[in-house]
Formats: sequence, C-alpha cells, structure tokens
Amino acid sequence: MTLYVNLAELLGARIEQGLYRPGDRLPSVRALSLEHGVSLSTVQQAYRLLEDNGLVAPRPKSGYFVPQHRTLPALPAVGRPAQRPVDISQWEHVVELVRSVPRKDIVQLGRGMPDVNSPTLKPLLRSLAQLSRRQDMPGLYYDTISGTQALREQVARLMLDSGCTIDAADLVITTGCHEALSASIRAVCEPGDIVAVDSPSFHGAMQTLKGLGMKAMEIPTDPLTGISLEALELALEQWPIKLIQVTPSCNNPLGYIMPEARKRALLSLAQRFDVAILEDDVYGDLAYTYPRPRTIKSFDDDGRVLLCSSFSKTLAPGLRVGWVAPGRYLERVLHMKYISTGSTATQPQLAIADFIEAGHYQPHLRRMRAQYQRGRDQMIDWVARYFPEGTRVSRPQGSFLLWVELPEECDTLKLNRLLLEQGVQIAMGSIFSASGKHRNCLRMNYAARPTPTIEAAVRKVGENAIRLLGEEAKLG
Amino acid sequence: MTLYVNLAELLGARIEQGLYRPGDRLPSVRALSLEHGVSLSTVQQAYRLLEDNGLVAPRPKSGYFVPQHRTLPALPAVGRPAQRPVDISQWEHVVELVRSVPRKDIVQLGRGMPDVNSPTLKPLLRSLAQLSRRQDMPGLYYDTISGTQALREQVARLMLDSGCTIDAADLVITTGCHEALSASIRAVCEPGDIVAVDSPSFHGAMQTLKGLGMKAMEIPTDPLTGISLEALELALEQWPIKLIQVTPSCNNPLGYIMPEARKRALLSLAQRFDVAILEDDVYGDLAYTYPRPRTIKSFDDDGRVLLCSSFSKTLAPGLRVGWVAPGRYLERVLHMKYISTGSTATQPQLAIADFIEAGHYQPHLRRMRAQYQRGRDQMIDWVARYFPEGTRVSRPQGSFLLWVELPEECDTLKLNRLLLEQGVQIAMGSIFSASGKHRNCLRMNYAARPTPTIEAAVRKVGENAIRLLGEEAKLG
Repeated sequence: MTLYVNLAELLGARIEQGLYRPGDRLPSVRALSLEHGVSLSTVQQAYRLLEDNGLVAPRPKSGYFVPQHRTLPALPAVGRPAQRPVDISQWEHVVELVRSVPRKDIVQLGRGMPDVNSPTLKPLLRSLAQLSRRQDMPGLYYDTISGTQALREQVARLMLDSGCTIDAADLVITTGCHEALSASIRAVCEPGDIVAVDSPSFHGAMQTLKGLGMKAMEIPTDPLTGISLEALELALEQWPIKLIQVTPSCNNPLGYIMPEARKRALLSLAQRFDVAILEDDVYGDLAYTYPRPRTIKSFDDDGRVLLCSSFSKTLAPGLRVGWVAPGRYLERVLHMKYISTGSTATQPQLAIADFIEAGHYQPHLRRMRAQYQRGRDQMIDWVARYFPEGTRVSRPQGSFLLWVELPEECDTLKLNRLLLEQGVQIAMGSIFSASGKHRNCLRMNYAARPTPTIEAAVRKVGENAIRLLGEEAKLG
Repeated sequence: MTLYVNLAELLGARIEQGLYRPGDRLPSVRALSLEHGVSLSTVQQAYRLLEDNGLVAPRPKSGYFVPQHRTLPALPAVGRPAQRPVDISQWEHVVELVRSVPRKDIVQLGRGMPDVNSPTLKPLLRSLAQLSRRQDMPGLYYDTISGTQALREQVARLMLDSGCTIDAADLVITTGCHEALSASIRAVCEPGDIVAVDSPSFHGAMQTLKGLGMKAMEIPTDPLTGISLEALELALEQWPIKLIQVTPSCNNPLGYIMPEARKRALLSLAQRFDVAILEDDVYGDLAYTYPRPRTIKSFDDDGRVLLCSSFSKTLAPGLRVGWVAPGRYLERVLHMKYISTGSTATQPQLAIADFIEAGHYQPHLRRMRAQYQRGRDQMIDWVARYFPEGTRVSRPQGSFLLWVELPEECDTLKLNRLLLEQGVQIAMGSIFSASGKHRNCLRMNYAARPTPTIEAAVRKVGENAIRLLGEEAKLG
C-alpha cells in the first residue's frame, strides 16, 4: 500500500478513536513528516484524502482541524478476512426487495433509486416525446447488437472525464448495468469459477454470480479506501480466481472512492496473477468532487478491465440503458449481449444521445451531486440523532447510499420485518454478502430531498433498532 | 402420428410429385375414406390441412381441386435424422448478419424485421409521446422484475386467443423474446445439457444455446407439419435430453403451423420422458387463418411448457418487449431475468398496454396478416420466376419469412458474398443449423410491401444462384 494511504488510515483511526476531538488542531504537515519519516507531499496527500472523507477540515494559514460540528458516528468496521470461496446465498431476501412494487404508503429507503424529479431531466423527456413523433420512427427499428452509433460516441466522450480514451467501436450498449455485468461475467468465467468480490458488495452483482453458477471469494473492504489489497493478494495466491469484481468509485454500499494509487495497485495485482477485473462504475459520475475520479480502466494497458456502467443512477433507471467497455473480451461480450436481449431498446438510446450532445448532462450532474451531498449530511445527522449508541456509518464520497452498522446484536432481518408493518423499507445488510454476513448492517437511500416524512421514516428505523436491542438484552 | 396428418402428407406428396395437376379434381371425401379405411371426418381434416397449406382449393359443391394457377415450386425436403448432439457452430456468420447496420443502399432480405410503417401503429407512437409528457414521469422509474402489472394483464388477455388461461402473476415481461428464451433455457438447463431443436431452427435461439454451453440435438422437421415426432422419440430414448425447443406456430424459418394433434402428441412425449418444452410463439399471432392456432402451452396441465413471445414481430422490434409464461419454472426464470437485465424499460411496456387496452391490437394484426399473406404469394411467384430450376420453397402459414432450398450444389455462403457486393442481403441457411447443415438454403423477408426495388433484389438472388450453379457445373 502507498505511504500516504497508510498515514491517512492511521490519522483517521486516531480521530475516530477520539484522540483528537472536534475543533482540535491536528499536527502540522512538517511535524508529521518528521514523525513518520515521509515527505511533505505524502503528508499533504494523506490530509487531502482525510479532507475528502470529511474527517479533517483545512483552515487557511492555520493547518488542519477536526471539524467543529463533528458529532459523526464512527466508521463501519472492516470485516474479517474470507476463509474460502462460497456458494452465494440470500436470493430469497434479494427477490423480496426487488419484487417490491413502489407504494405510496411505504417509504422505500432500501432501493438504489435516484431522484428523477429534477427539472434538469426535462430535455430528456422532450427528446423521448419528439422521437415518437418523427416520421421515420427510428424507435421502432432493431438496433444493432453493439447499440446505436450516436450514443456510443457520446459515451466515449463522457469517458474522457474518467481518464479513459476509448473508441466508440469498443463499446457495447446494454439494457442497464445489469446486462453489462452479466455479459461481462459470462464472457470471462465458466460455471464453478471463483470470483473475488469486495465485501459488502452490490447484491445484484452477487446474485448474478450465483445465477451463473460462480463461487464468490469475499475480500474484506475498508470503508475509506476499498478492497484490502493484502487480503486479495493472499486469496489470489491460494485460489484459482478468474475475475476480481469491484466498485471502486463511489462504492455501493460503502460510498468510498478508492484512492488512485490503490486502483493502480489493484491493476498490478491483476496483471501479476493474470486475472480480469470487472469494474462497476455506475455511481462514478456522482462523485461529490470535481473532476470525477479516474477509473481502473483508465490505467488498463492490456485490455483486462471490463468497465460496466449505466445511466440508471445519473439519469433514470426506467430507461434501461447501460454500457460495457470490455477491452480484450469484446467479441465474447457481443455474443453474450446478443443472446441475452438481442439488442437494447432504440428510443431511450437516441434520447440520451440527444441529451448529452445538447450539453444537458453536466449541468444535470452538477445539480444532483450537490443535492446528494446535502442529502448525505442530513442523513448522517439523522442517524447520529435517532440510532442506538454504538451505531457506525459510512462517509459516502458520491452517490446517494448510506451504509449503517448497528450494534452487533441487532439483526436487520428482524428489523426489516418490524419496519415493513410501519411503512418503511430498508435494504438489509446480509444481501450485500455472499454468505449472509453484515447481518447487523443496513443501507439507506438519501436521493430524495429531505422531508418530514423521510425524517420520520429514518427515526422509525432508529427507534425500532433500539427496541430490538432492548429485547435482545432481556433475552440475553 | 394421427391419421389425418398421415393422410394429408400422402396426398400432399402426390400433388407435389405431379400425380394430380393444376385444375385436376381430387378424389372425393367418400372415395378416400373407403380407400384408406378412415372416417369421413378424418379425410375432411386432412383436406383442411392441405387447404391451409395452399395445396388444395375447395369449390362449393364440387369437392377439392389442385389450384388452377398452381405453378408452385416443390416443398423443401426433410433433413436426414440427426446422429448425435453437437456443439453449436456458425456464430461467426450469425454475428455478421446481426451486426449489419441498416443501410439505404442495401436491400435487407435477411433479417426478421416486420413492416413498422403501417398507420395502425400510430396510436402506439402517440402513447409513447404522451407518456413522456406526463407529470409523474412513470417511464423513468424502475419497474419490478416481473414487469408492469398493466401489461401483464393485457398479455394474459391476448393469450386467451391461443387457448391459454393464465394469470398475470404467472407472466414475466422480458426485454424482447431473446431474454425470454435465454432466461428459460438457463432456468431449465445446466451447461453441457442436451437440448432437442427443430432443424432448420431460429439462429438466435441456437446461438443462445451455444453461448450458455448447451449441446443441440437436431431433429428433422417436415415443412408442413413440423418436428418429426418419430425422430424426436428415438432421440429421447437414446440421449438424456433436458429440453425440447420448438417454434410450432408460424415456424421460423419454415412457416408451417404444426397441426393441433401433433402439438398434443409432442406434449405427451415430453411428459413421458419428463422433459420441459420451450415453445417460441413469437410469430403465432401472425397466422393467416383466424382464430390463430392454439399453443402447446394451452394443453399443458403440469407446467412443463415455457412459452416465450414478444411484440417484436407483431408491433415493432425496437421496443424490446417480450414475455415468458414459465409454468413451474417461474421462480427460476425470475432469478434469471433479474440477473440478465434487472427489469425491462418501463415506457414501452406502458405504451403497449395502452395500445392493447384501447383496442388497437387486433385491427393492426388483421391488416398485417393480410399484407403478409399477399407478400408471401408475391415472393413465391418471384422465386418461381427467377430462381434456378429445382428450387424448392416453403408454404408459410403466417409471419413474413420464406425458406428457399436451392439445388444441392449451390452454397449460399458464396451466394451471400456475391450478393452483398450487389446491395442485397439474405440469411444463409447454414445459420439455421447447429452443425452448418442447410448450406444450399436461404431465408428471405417479405414483410415490406412489394416494390420494383425488392423485385429487382429477389431477381438478383435468383440470377446469382444460377450463375453459381453454372460455375459449379464447369468445375465439376
């Protein structure tokens, strides 16, 4: 691991442990450089990482401080190292979540739904309507399996922002990121193969592995810096892993952005062991910092990274438009895309291409990023206020999902049942693990603008967790 | 096999062989009943089957005649029985066809594209536009994995026409029929399993088997009555077949409608050997006769039939909306649908539901059926006029695809190369076989209204085939 990440983790731990308290001034860059025997710029990088994660705040000409208003709960703990590859379970809980129909009387904090009510989406709807009125009715025709040329060109342009120079011909449009993931996995793996995954990890990707007959090797993951490279290396030495599946930029569910140096190190590991990387970048454009983080794909020089993404989180999921940049696996992915849906619906592709070309995408992103960042602060504040003592929360650097770790005795499967009777839905932590770990965790969505209804729902989550803990204590 | 089908095949063969000539009166119902020792109604059923296939024409009070204007080429031959399950090849030719971008300077006779220019589709486009203008923007939201309730209800209603009484809850909406097929196959089979297929067979379904690692057992198929039940039974006795995959109503590419009695017999076979049936009904609603034929699914009493279909041929393929009625495999299919695309685009589903509910579907079908039936007669006429002697053609009973069998020495792979230089594209016969059989066959699309440009294109196909045959003769 690089020096500055090490240093940042050390300092972060000291702050989390209360060694420095809100308002305290932190050691100067020079002092730390001397103390740890590292360069000034290494310390500066470490402080910048901590700043990105909201753990320190700079004051002009005075150095770094622990934020004054900081009453932040501690960060989630890093899980224990995986023992062996496992068959993936939890489908029965995932299907419960994804089969749930949106209902007015339930506050759905559990789903990965962005806010689609922003006025900055209006031009997209106009495009959709205009396409339906065109004489040549392009929306009715089959698209080619690769997707419309117009959209592939726009996606290639967007990818420049993450440091990727890619040709439109090397992209395949898919029906949402789901199809990108499953086509990629099938392009690389056979049933029975082992895939290394971050843990916690997106349940959709994990259930895809299950459905395709793969085994998952869960790698412990740090809530600030991502998948443990040390644990991953150990696993690569021990097991015939075929693919590493990660969401390094605005991780779902932990929200971290893996530092660039670690992204590079992950790629080096993959090269050394000659395995492919599936990089899920579906939330990458929603990073709160600008410019958005680079992708692992942007460092990839031998085509082993399959980058999967979509417009489901940045624009709207109902459009079902995603893409994959499959590198050396292009031909295999095309076959897998062909057999899974033939082609992707034409009209949404054309409407999105229009939307980006007309310059509406970046202003929309700017607005959503700002809204989601405010949403994060509000949600963390509510958790700090309403949740049981000992609750830990993530520090999302992008997207609109918060990971909450309750005290160990609190089973979120039971909590979810209690909550559904009270009109609140959460995503249980266990579905983010191949083997049902993270049972005391949950994920909540803060995409929608805060309202008293949402606050009341979050409060219910906290109160029911406290109630459950009380019952456990009595039984214990 | 049932008696009337036997009898029809016998009479059909006599007509094909020229024993009865155009304008000839055929033996009376009574005479045939005595000659073959079968009931009067069996003979009547046989004549009706022949009539459906255009081989005989009734004249009121005078009996059955060979059509006067009949200069029809003979029917395609039935292939030889399969030897053993095979690994599927031909992907490189299929990908060439499906990657081809629609171009103004090429007449694409090769693709399965319906005519989407009918004015009866206008209300669908209006619905799409209206949905984009709605305040609540339903098209932007995630759908549930099963698909929108409104559309599932309409599909359940339509399925009554094919004799199926099914609940909306037992349907899963998919992204085109492709996703229905691949989710169904994965729900039933494991890689390495053997699937029995009709031959020739839809290349998309076959490449799906390939992509998922299955082997195909090709069963000879009669151009009038469908998959050979005798050969299928033999195969089921010899091999551990998991699934029978057929397109019994308006078959692609042969165009036949399997007689109801044979559909029932196929189901009985599947029950006896306890295998599942994948019934592709994507062209079923385009049968030229009304009411449309019953599906095998409509006789299914133990949930072993997975019926797959879509609106790609009846409305428009660019919408990418299909469905599957998976019987006892519902839960497995839901998992497979979830991991392949998560959910299907919302707006096209809602627009189609509106279109059907407002009563626009049946009038549209009536118009298209009539147009396609005229198209078939025109296309067969052109083939009879321009193609080499010894050419055989199918007698489509629905849809818009003609199967043409050229003399054996004619390789349609070479023919296709010649034609592409001349701005004409066909579908080569070999892609309709798992093992590259049917090399002297091709499939042509007659969905579009006949124009001099299309006639010129068909003529080119014939002339180039004659040229190729001449070259072969010289070499031989």
